Amino acid sequence: MTPAEPACTDAGLLAPGRAGSPAESATGDLAFLRALLDAEAALTRAQASLGLAPAAAADAVTGAADVSRFDVRSLALRARTGGNPVIPLVADLTAAVGAEHAPYVHRGATSQDIMDTAAMLVAVRTLDLVLADLARVEAALERHAREHRDTAMPGRTLTQHAVPTTFGLKAAGWRALVLDARDRLRAVRDALPAQLGGAAGTLAALGAYGAPDPTAVVEAYAAELGLRAPELPWHTLRTPVADLAGALAFTAGALGRTAADVLILGRTEIRELSEGTGGGSSAMPHKANPVRATLVAAAARRAPQLAATLYGSLAAEDERPAGAWHAEWEPLRDLLRLVGGAARDAVPLTEGLRVHPQAMRDHLGLTHGLIVSERLSAELAPVLGRAGARHLLTEAARRATSEDVPLAEILAGEPELKGVDLTDLTDPAQYTGSAGALTDRALERR
Amino acid sequence: MTPAEPACTDAGLLAPGRAGSPAESATGDLAFLRALLDAEAALTRAQASLGLAPAAAADAVTGAADVSRFDVRSLALRARTGGNPVIPLVADLTAAVGAEHAPYVHRGATSQDIMDTAAMLVAVRTLDLVLADLARVEAALERHAREHRDTAMPGRTLTQHAVPTTFGLKAAGWRALVLDARDRLRAVRDALPAQLGGAAGTLAALGAYGAPDPTAVVEAYAAELGLRAPELPWHTLRTPVADLAGALAFTAGALGRTAADVLILGRTEIRELSEGTGGGSSAMPHKANPVRATLVAAAARRAPQLAATLYGSLAAEDERPAGAWHAEWEPLRDLLRLVGGAARDAVPLTEGLRVHPQAMRDHLGLTHGLIVSERLSAELAPVLGRAGARHLLTEAARRATSEDVPLAEILAGEPELKGVDLTDLTDPAQYTGSAGALTDRALERR
Amino acid sequence: MTPAEPACTDAGLLAPGRAGSPAESATGDLAFLRALLDAEAALTRAQASLGLAPAAAADAVTGAADVSRFDVRSLALRARTGGNPVIPLVADLTAAVGAEHAPYVHRGATSQDIMDTAAMLVAVRTLDLVLADLARVEAALERHAREHRDTAMPGRTLTQHAVPTTFGLKAAGWRALVLDARDRLRAVRDALPAQLGGAAGTLAALGAYGAPDPTAVVEAYAAELGLRAPELPWHTLRTPVADLAGALAFTAGALGRTAADVLILGRTEIRELSEGTGGGSSAMPHKANPVRATLVAAAARRAPQLAATLYGSLAAEDERPAGAWHAEWEPLRDLLRLVGGAARDAVPLTEGLRVHPQAMRDHLGLTHGLIVSERLSAELAPVLGRAGARHLLTEAARRATSEDVPLAEILAGEPELKGVDLTDLTDPAQYTGSAGALTDRALERR
Amino acid sequence: MTPAEPACTDAGLLAPGRAGSPAESATGDLAFLRALLDAEAALTRAQASLGLAPAAAADAVTGAADVSRFDVRSLALRARTGGNPVIPLVADLTAAVGAEHAPYVHRGATSQDIMDTAAMLVAVRTLDLVLADLARVEAALERHAREHRDTAMPGRTLTQHAVPTTFGLKAAGWRALVLDARDRLRAVRDALPAQLGGAAGTLAALGAYGAPDPTAVVEAYAAELGLRAPELPWHTLRTPVADLAGALAFTAGALGRTAADVLILGRTEIRELSEGTGGGSSAMPHKANPVRATLVAAAARRAPQLAATLYGSLAAEDERPAGAWHAEWEPLRDLLRLVGGAARDAVPLTEGLRVHPQAMRDHLGLTHGLIVSERLSAELAPVLGRAGARHLLTEAARRATSEDVPLAEILAGEPELKGVDLTDLTDPAQYTGSAGALTDRALERR
Repeated sequence: MTPAEPACTDAGLLAPGRAGSPAESATGDLAFLRALLDAEAALTRAQASLGLAPAAAADAVTGAADVSRFDVRSLALRARTGGNPVIPLVADLTAAVGAEHAPYVHRGATSQDIMDTAAMLVAVRTLDLVLADLARVEAALERHAREHRDTAMPGRTLTQHAVPTTFGLKAAGWRALVLDARDRLRAVRDALPAQLGGAAGTLAALGAYGAPDPTAVVEAYAAELGLRAPELPWHTLRTPVADLAGALAFTAGALGRTAADVLILGRTEIRELSEGTGGGSSAMPHKANPVRATLVAAAARRAPQLAATLYGSLAAEDERPAGAWHAEWEPLRDLLRLVGGAARDAVPLTEGLRVHPQAMRDHLGLTHGLIVSERLSAELAPVLGRAGARHLLTEAARRATSEDVPLAEILAGEPELKGVDLTDLTDPAQYTGSAGALTDRALERR
Repeated sequence: MTPAEPACTDAGLLAPGRAGSPAESATGDLAFLRALLDAEAALTRAQASLGLAPAAAADAVTGAADVSRFDVRSLALRARTGGNPVIPLVADLTAAVGAEHAPYVHRGATSQDIMDTAAMLVAVRTLDLVLADLARVEAALERHAREHRDTAMPGRTLTQHAVPTTFGLKAAGWRALVLDARDRLRAVRDALPAQLGGAAGTLAALGAYGAPDPTAVVEAYAAELGLRAPELPWHTLRTPVADLAGALAFTAGALGRTAADVLILGRTEIRELSEGTGGGSSAMPHKANPVRATLVAAAARRAPQLAATLYGSLAAEDERPAGAWHAEWEPLRDLLRLVGGAARDAVPLTEGLRVHPQAMRDHLGLTHGLIVSERLSAELAPVLGRAGARHLLTEAARRATSEDVPLAEILAGEPELKGVDLTDLTDPAQYTGSAGALTDRALERR
Repeated sequence: MTPAEPACTDAGLLAPGRAGSPAESATGDLAFLRALLDAEAALTRAQASLGLAPAAAADAVTGAADVSRFDVRSLALRARTGGNPVIPLVADLTAAVGAEHAPYVHRGATSQDIMDTAAMLVAVRTLDLVLADLARVEAALERHAREHRDTAMPGRTLTQHAVPTTFGLKAAGWRALVLDARDRLRAVRDALPAQLGGAAGTLAALGAYGAPDPTAVVEAYAAELGLRAPELPWHTLRTPVADLAGALAFTAGALGRTAADVLILGRTEIRELSEGTGGGSSAMPHKANPVRATLVAAAARRAPQLAATLYGSLAAEDERPAGAWHAEWEPLRDLLRLVGGAARDAVPLTEGLRVHPQAMRDHLGLTHGLIVSERLSAELAPVLGRAGARHLLTEAARRATSEDVPLAEILAGEPELKGVDLTDLTDPAQYTGSAGALTDRALERR
Repeated sequence: MTPAEPACTDAGLLAPGRAGSPAESATGDLAFLRALLDAEAALTRAQASLGLAPAAAADAVTGAADVSRFDVRSLALRARTGGNPVIPLVADLTAAVGAEHAPYVHRGATSQDIMDTAAMLVAVRTLDLVLADLARVEAALERHAREHRDTAMPGRTLTQHAVPTTFGLKAAGWRALVLDARDRLRAVRDALPAQLGGAAGTLAALGAYGAPDPTAVVEAYAAELGLRAPELPWHTLRTPVADLAGALAFTAGALGRTAADVLILGRTEIRELSEGTGGGSSAMPHKANPVRATLVAAAARRAPQLAATLYGSLAAEDERPAGAWHAEWEPLRDLLRLVGGAARDAVPLTEGLRVHPQAMRDHLGLTHGLIVSERLSAELAPVLGRAGARHLLTEAARRATSEDVPLAEILAGEPELKGVDLTDLTDPAQYTGSAGALTDRALERR
C-alpha cells in the first residue's frame, strides 16, 4: 500500500447501493469541494456586483476556485486543527489568487457560511438526480398499474390472505407514495437557502468592510448560487437540514415500501413478481436474487436513524453549536447518497419488474375459496338471514379446509343455495371491490 | 394494591413534562377510546346518510359510542388475542346497540380503518392544542425581540465569545424556528385523512353490502369526522404518519433550540437569562433550577428517535404489515404528547423569561475588548495597511490579555492611531452589524 | 368523562404487546412508586443500622412507605414544579411519618438518588420476569431443535432457496440468540447498583449529618435493597442505564429474529410453520393471524431507537444534567415493558409453534432439484472435470426449469453419468451438511 | 476533474474527527479489502492444513491475496450486480491464482462468510487502536484526578451551583466511564468470531468437497485469523455485530461525557478548564475554540443512532436476510471510525487539558456562600433547632443575595451563632464531603 492510497477512505466498496451512481458523484468529497469553492467564488462575485470588491478580484477568485487545483486529502487533514475544512480551503484559495486579490477572498464570511451553503448546493444537485429517477419510477409504476388494473391477486394482511385485491391497485399505491416523496423533495429543494451571516450571524463584518446594506450582499450571493436568500442567517436555525432529513427519510421509506413487497412476492414459493435481472450465484444457478430490492430495503432501514441525528441537531445552542453542527455533515451526505442510490436502483427494479398474473390467480385458490368468505357473509345474509348465513359458511369453510375441496363446490351442494348463482360470488377475481376505480383515480394524479 | 390498581400503567409519574397538560388528556387511552368510538359512529352515520343503513342504526351507534360505557382496561386486555383493540371494541359496541342495529356496526370496515382514523382524530385534536401554545410562545418571543432589538450581548460560537450580537436577534431566531414548526404542523394537520379501505383496501365489503359507489362512503365518513378524504386507502401508504413524525420531531427540536440557549445563558456564571420561576430545592435555597427548559430539552432529546421508528414503518409490506403498523401506535402517541408537553412548558418558559441586559453588557467586556477585533481588522486595514493592521492588533491583543487591560486602552496609546476615533470602533455594543435590521425583517413574518 | 378518569393516561389500550403482562405491572407507575418508597425506606434503615438514625424512625418510614397511602396522580402533577416526582413524594412521606421522624426522611439524599435507585429496582424486578420467560422460550426451542434435528427444509438467502438446511438447525440458532440475550440480561441485572451521592455526588450531607464514613451508608443502603453498592455515585456516569439499553435492545432483536422467521414461514403460500393459535377474523374464517409473532416483531422495531436515546444520555454534563437524565425515564421503562411483553409473547409463540415437515419437504422440490446444484457441482467435478461438470449442470438446470422436470430425471438420462448413483446426490434431504452436528453442539450450551 | 477522481467518494473532507487517524486507515476501503483477502487466504490455508487442499494452492492464494493487485473501485462498481463485493473479488482472486489453484479459492464459502469475517478483522484491528488511545486517556485522567484530589469547585446540577465538589472527583468519574468503555470493548473484541457456514450455514459444501468434519475447517480458519471459532454460523445470529454496536455506542458516550463537561467548563464566562491548544480564528485572535471536545461531542451525537440501525438488524429473516445484513456494513464501519476518531481526539483533550483551580475557587463564591447552605441547615439544626435553623438561614440567604454580601458575614453578625465557629462551616472548600475518599477508591481500579 503506498502512502497515498489510504487517503481515499471510501471508494464505495461497502456501498453497492450507491457505488457508481450519479448521486455518489454528486455527494463525494470532490463534489463538496466544488460546492465549497462555488460558494467562495459566489461570495466575491456578489460583492463585486455591488461595487464592494473589484471585478478583477471576482474573476480571480472564480478562476482560482477550480477543484482540480486543490488537494482534497490535504484539506481533510488540515481541517482537524480548526474542526472544519473551510479554514485550510480559505488559506489555499487566498494563496492561489495572489496578494492583490487576497483581501476579497472569504471576506465577511465565517466557515459555517461556506460549509452550509456548499451542503445546500450539494443537496440541490443530488435532489435533481433523485427527482429524475423518481420520475422514471413513477412512470414505470403507472404502466404496471394500468396494465394490471384488473389483475386479481390475494390481498394479504398480517402475512395471511385476506380478500382479493389487484396488482394494479398495489402498483398505484406504490406510485402514490413515490409521488408523495417527489412532492416533499421538490418543496424542500426549492426552499433551500444560501447561508451568509458572518462570525455570529449579524453580517457585521460586511458592514465593517463597507457594505451599506449587508443583506443586499446576501441576496446577490444567493442569486449567484441559484439558492434562496434566507430570511435570517440560519447557523443555529436548522430548518433546511431538518427538512432535508424528513424528505429524504420519507423517500427512502417510500421506495422501501415497494421493495418490501417485491421481496415478499418474489420469494421462491410465491413468485408473483420477479426482478428483471436478479443477481446470480455461481454455485447455485437457480438463484436469481432480488438484489435491487434488497439494496433499496437496506437503504430504507438506515435512513430513519440518520434523519434522527439531523433532527437532533435542531436543538443547537449559541450562535454556532459545539458538536450539533459538526454532527450533521456526514449524516446529511449519507442520507443524500443512500436515497440517491435507492432511487437509482428503483428504476430497474420497477421498469424491469416482471409480473406473473397466473401465479397471482393460482394463489387466489390457496384458501379453497375462503378468500371470498367476507363477500359470501355479506351477500348470503339477505338470503339466509345473518345467523343462518354465518352458520352455513362456518361449516362450509371447515369442510373446504379439512376435505381440501373448493368452497364453491361445497356451497353448490347446499340445498338452501339452490337458487343462488354462486359462480361470481365465489370467484375471487370478481371480488376486487373498488380496486379498479381507485386505481383509475390514483392515476389521475400527476 | 387492589387488583384494579395496576390497570393504570401510567398516570404520568415519569412524565413531568406532560403530566396534567391538555395534550396528555387529548392523547390518553380515554381520548383514543373516544376517537375509536367517533370513528365507528361516523362510519354508520356515513352509510345512513347515503341510504345504506337505517337512520335509527346511525342514531343507535352514535348513542352507544359513549366512552363512559366502555372499560378501557378490559379492551386493552382483550386486544391481546387479535393484536388490536378494535376487535373487542366492536364486540362491545355491537352488544351495546342491540341485535336490530348490530349489522350496521363496523360494517365494511377493518380494524385498521378505525385505528388509523382514531389516530388521525387524536392527532388533529392534539395539534390544535400545540398550535395554540405555539401562538403564545411566538407572541412572547416577538415581544422579547422587539424589546431587546438593540440589547447587545456576546455572540458565541463553539462556546467562545466571537463577535457581539443582540438578544433581539436571538429571540427573533427562536421565533422564526417556532413559526417554521407552526407552518409544518398546520400543513400536516390540515392534510390528515380518514382511513377506510376494508379488509384489504379495496372497499369490497362496502360494495358487497350494497354501496353503489363505495368511495362515496369514504367521502361521507371523512366529512362526518372533519378529516380529509383520502385518495387511496393508506393501510400501507403511511404518508400521514410519516408527515406527523417529521413535523413533530421538528417542533420538538425547534422548542429545544430555545431551551438549549436558556439553559446555557442561565447558568450560575452567566445569568443573562433566567426562568421566571425556577424549581427550587429545600436544602439549597439559592437554587432556581431552569425546570421548564430542562423538560423541553428532554423532549427534544427523545423526539427524533421516536420519529425514526415511524419513518421506519413506511417500508410496510402487503396490504397490512405484521409489525410495522403495530409499532406506530405508541411512538406516535408519545411524540404527540411529548410535543404537547413541550409546547405547554414553552409558554411559561418564554412568557416568563427574565432578560438581564446588564449581564450581557458586562460579558461583552470579558475578552478585554477582543470581541471587536474582527471589526478593527477590517476598519484599520485601510489606515495601516492590511499587514500593518494585523501586526498591531496581534500585539495589542496579546498585551490586553496578558496585562488584563482593555484593548481600547492599549490602542489609544498607539501613535499610529492618533487620528482615529476609537470610541465607537472598540465599543462592542456598536458592533452588532445588521442585527437590528434582521430582527425587524424577521418580525414582519406572521 | 369524570375528572378522575383522565388521570390514567395509559391503561394499555395501544399496547396489546404488553397489556396484562407481569412486566407491565412491574413497570407501571405504581411499581415505580413502590420502588421510590422502597428506596426512601432503605435509606433511613441504612442510617439506623449504622446508628445514624433512631430505629423508630426507620420503622416509621418503612411503615409509611406504603404505596396505597400515596396518590400517584397527585405526585405526577406536583412533579411538574421541580421536574421530578421525588420532591412531592418526600413532602408526602415526611408528612406521613410525623414531626418526630421527619428529619430522617430522605436525609442526605438528592432526588436523583431515589429516582435512579427506583429505576434499578424496577429493572431488576422486570428482568427477573423476562429471564423466567426466556427460560421457557429456550426450553421450547430446544425441544423443536431436538425433534427436528433432521427435518430438512429449504435454506433461503435473499428470499430465494439456496441449499437445504434443517429446521433443527434453525431452531437451535434461534435458541442460541435467546441464550445470548439471557446471558447479557443476567450480567447487567447482577451489576445494577443503588444510587446514593447527595446533592452533587460527594455524600457531603451524610457527613454533615454525622456519618463518620458516608460510604458505609451507601453500602448499607444497597444491601437493604439487594442492589450492588456503586464504586462512585453515578449521577452522570450512566453505565447502568446504557448497559440496560444494550441488553434490552439485544433481547428485543433476539426475539424479533424468531418472529421474523415465523412470519415468513407461516405465510399462506409457505405454511411451514404456524402459530399455535392465531388471532382470527370474524369476516374471514380462514385467517389465522400470527399475532404473537407480529407483536414481538413490533417490539423489535421500536427497541433500538429507545436504546439510542439512552445511549445518547451518556454524554451528560455537570453533576446532574438538564435534560439528559430526564430523557431516560420513559424510554427505559418503555424498553423494559416492550421486552417484557415480547418475552411473554415469545412463550406461546415458541411453545405452541406448529411445524409442518411435509411442507418443508415439498418446498425442497420447488426448484426442480436445483437446490442441490451446489453439491452436484462439487461432487461431479472429479468425475467430469470442473468445466465439464459446470457445462452439464448449466444445461441440465436450464432444461429442468424450462421443461418443468426434476433435475434428477434429466441427469439420469445423461450418458456421462451412467455409473454415478444419483439418488442421494440429488436428494435435497441428503444435503444438509453439518446441520445435525451443529445442532447437537449448539444444544450442549446451557 | 478526471474520470478517475470521483472513484474516491470520501477522503475525509467532512470528517475532521477522524481524518488522518489510525482508525480511519484501519477501516478504509483498502483495509476492508485487505481483510477480505486475509479471509480468503485463511480459508484456503485452513483447508490445506487439514489436507483438503494442496499446500501449493494455499501458498498461491496467500500470495495472490495482496491488496495492491486489486482495484478497489472496480470491485465496488462490480459489486452492484450481486449486491456485495465478494463476488467480483473472488472472480479476480481466482483469475490471479491461475487455473491450477482456482478450485481452491473461496471453496466451501459464501460471500457472507468472507464479508462477516473481514468485518470482524477490521473491528479487532480498530478496537486495538481504540484501546491504546483509551489507555492514554485513562492515564491522563488519573493524573488529573490525583493532582486535583482536593481542588474544590462548584458542583452543578440542572446548570446551577448546588454544593461543592472537587475536580479530582469529576476527573475520577470521567476515568471510571472510560474504564467501563474499555472493559466493554475488550470483552467484545476478544469474543469476535470468524464466520464460515457456506451457502445456508450448514457447511454442506465443505462436506461435498470432502471434508470429513467441516467444523474442523471452521476451527482452523478461525485460528489462521486469530478470531474465535463460532459455535454456529452466525449469518442471521448477529450477536457479534450487536455487541460491537453496544460497546461502541457506549464508548462514544463515555468520551462524550468528558467532552460535555469540557465544553461547559471552558466557556468564556467559566474558564475552569481549557483545551491545551484550541483551534483559532484568523479574524478573532481571542478565540481558542475547544475543537477536540467539539469533535468528540459530535461523535457522541451520532453513535447511538448508528448503533440503533445495527440492533435493528438482529431481527433478520431466513438464512441470509434481504437488507438487514446489507444495512450493517456502513454503519458498523462508521461507528468504528467515529469512535476511533473520538478516542484519538480524547488523547490531546485529556492530556493537554488545562485546569484553572483559581477560577474554580472564585466560582465557589458566586452564590455568596449559599453553596454551603445545605451544610449549614444540617449543622445548625442541633444548635438552633430545625425550624430555627431554617428560619435563620432563609433570612440570611435572602439578605446575602439582595445585599450582595457573603453569607458568612451575615451569619457572623447573628447573636444566636456567637459561639459557633463559622469559618469552616461557611467555607465551600471545606464542604466537599467524601470527594477525596471516593476519588482515592475510584483510582484503585485498574
